[in-house]
Amino acid sequence: MIQTPYLLFLGDAPDMLAAKVAIGIRDWRPDNAVGQFRMEGCKADLGLTDMTLAEAKAAGAKTLVIGVANRGGVISQAWKKVLVAALEEGFDLASGLHSLLRDEPDLVAVAAATGQALHDVRVPEVKYPIANGEKRSGKRCLAVGTDCSVGKMYTAMAMDAEMRERGMKATFRATGQTGILITGDGVPLDAVIADFMAGSVEWLTPDNDDDHWDLIEGQGSLFHVSYSGVTMALIHGGAPDALILAHEPTREHMRGLPGYSLPSLETLRDTALPLARVANPACEVVGISVNTQNMSEDEARAYCAETEARMGLPTTDPYRFGAGKLVDALAAL
Amino acid sequence: MIQTPYLLFLGDAPDMLAAKVAIGIRDWRPDNAVGQFRMEGCKADLGLTDMTLAEAKAAGAKTLVIGVANRGGVISQAWKKVLVAALEEGFDLASGLHSLLRDEPDLVAVAAATGQALHDVRVPEVKYPIANGEKRSGKRCLAVGTDCSVGKMYTAMAMDAEMRERGMKATFRATGQTGILITGDGVPLDAVIADFMAGSVEWLTPDNDDDHWDLIEGQGSLFHVSYSGVTMALIHGGAPDALILAHEPTREHMRGLPGYSLPSLETLRDTALPLARVANPACEVVGISVNTQNMSEDEARAYCAETEARMGLPTTDPYRFGAGKLVDALAAL
Repeated sequence: MIQTPYLLFLGDAPDMLAAKVAIGIRDWRPDNAVGQFRMEGCKADLGLTDMTLAEAKAAGAKTLVIGVANRGGVISQAWKKVLVAALEEGFDLASGLHSLLRDEPDLVAVAAATGQALHDVRVPEVKYPIANGEKRSGKRCLAVGTDCSVGKMYTAMAMDAEMRERGMKATFRATGQTGILITGDGVPLDAVIADFMAGSVEWLTPDNDDDHWDLIEGQGSLFHVSYSGVTMALIHGGAPDALILAHEPTREHMRGLPGYSLPSLETLRDTALPLARVANPACEVVGISVNTQNMSEDEARAYCAETEARMGLPTTDPYRFGAGKLVDALAAL
Repeated sequence: MIQTPYLLFLGDAPDMLAAKVAIGIRDWRPDNAVGQFRMEGCKADLGLTDMTLAEAKAAGAKTLVIGVANRGGVISQAWKKVLVAALEEGFDLASGLHSLLRDEPDLVAVAAATGQALHDVRVPEVKYPIANGEKRSGKRCLAVGTDCSVGKMYTAMAMDAEMRERGMKATFRATGQTGILITGDGVPLDAVIADFMAGSVEWLTPDNDDDHWDLIEGQGSLFHVSYSGVTMALIHGGAPDALILAHEPTREHMRGLPGYSLPSLETLRDTALPLARVANPACEVVGISVNTQNMSEDEARAYCAETEARMGLPTTDPYRFGAGKLVDALAAL
């Protein structure tokens, strides 16, 4: 569990794209971000207050989050001065980079001396159990995609925000680095040992109030041969009551697999639902989330309307048009 | 890669059941077993020549394999004297126990001093790639089960033996501890990090002659919620040309999951085949392997005949009745 709120470290980010993690935190957990820290030459700007370490400390920030990725995912030597100073100032550090904070001897030494924590969210910090398949109380929703990176996390985040606004009981359950940094907690599922994948998802989504919804962050796709095992473990470990189908209509082939075309939404539905019912016979497909970022607004609205009519399921782009339709569908279940 | 042949260490095994790994080696790779080593009180006997370390060394044995499991999977202190002496005598050690050889300081020290290797086959020794989904030459066969532990490894082993006898090109590809110890090589799939599961199976089954068959050891079941992710990764990483359905007809519920019933063979076929075709559109279900160990011979023959007629697929218990039918089906593909 990472202590919130955060100071978002943007370092020397060459552009906004490099600040994806920080953008996610600002967009979905603005209360977690007291300000931003930019080094000389930084080309990213989140529109948050620029703060020194001391100012952020005074404003209540507890953790400096590396909200930027650089080429190769390494911890740049140029950042070290700031990271060391942050530890000295009493901040914990959190990172989702491939290179680990714990592999940097200087950071480890200063963290030990100051008593601060180093959080590498790519590395599981829990010894997860093997899944037992037992029925848990409370309800769970999972987005499954026709491909990787079609907006499954944003779908769950948008539904979570809408449900909280309506006063419904909901918790976003992070299963990837970005989600974990945004919320401060979760399971880095792609780094879990095979035998414990489904068990880690059960652990992440325990018994809860009958009217509480876990919105589980999806990963991979049953149709993406590199990562389908991770998706399968999410479906069986999560035992969802509701599935959302997620799709990006302009994608020409599976991400990173030029020889593989995307399945239709019908095929995704007919594949995922019977598998989900192994773990939860009551599971239903309740809606469709379309990532329309590469379409004009007219195209996007037309695509959603056509899909909704064809599939007989509420269809929207929850990031662009709001998650109301999808939350209505959950509430009606 | 573990050096063969082996001396099979049975220790103080309380019964034959505890010697499962050694039995597998004797049954499937008799050439790998030059003899057995039994301590006082050992109740297991493989019918192999009892040898001292010196006798086994003279007979050509290169590795002492711990072919026995004791309660808790620990490395018994009573064994240590033999294990240390084996290293001193010039043997490598290999183990599939939960407790690792490498975590025993005395064994590590003696192995370092003597230059011998310690093989813990539960721990991956390779940095596997992420799966790329590219078509490989050669052919692959995978058994998928209605449940865990229904005979998938024995099916592949029996087919491998039959194919070699016929002079066909075949390689058993181990994906679990027992299979790895039997053959000396493989991927401990249940211990691989989630993101690399499918890639490890691609790595295990590389390009080969067009008429060569990899017989991939199956794991778990698409219908076993604890391990279905591992099975999914095998199906997509293995990209099989042929699937064998594996079933144990007397099983009353999924192994370790009292609330879960087994799927029918029809459901297994209709679930596994479309998923397999994502990675290999030419994939076919070619036969059915029935584990009849809990049936009389008459019952077993009747069950296989009825299943063969109902499913329209060659059906046999390859361990009890031979794998000929299943190999015929592969050869006809």
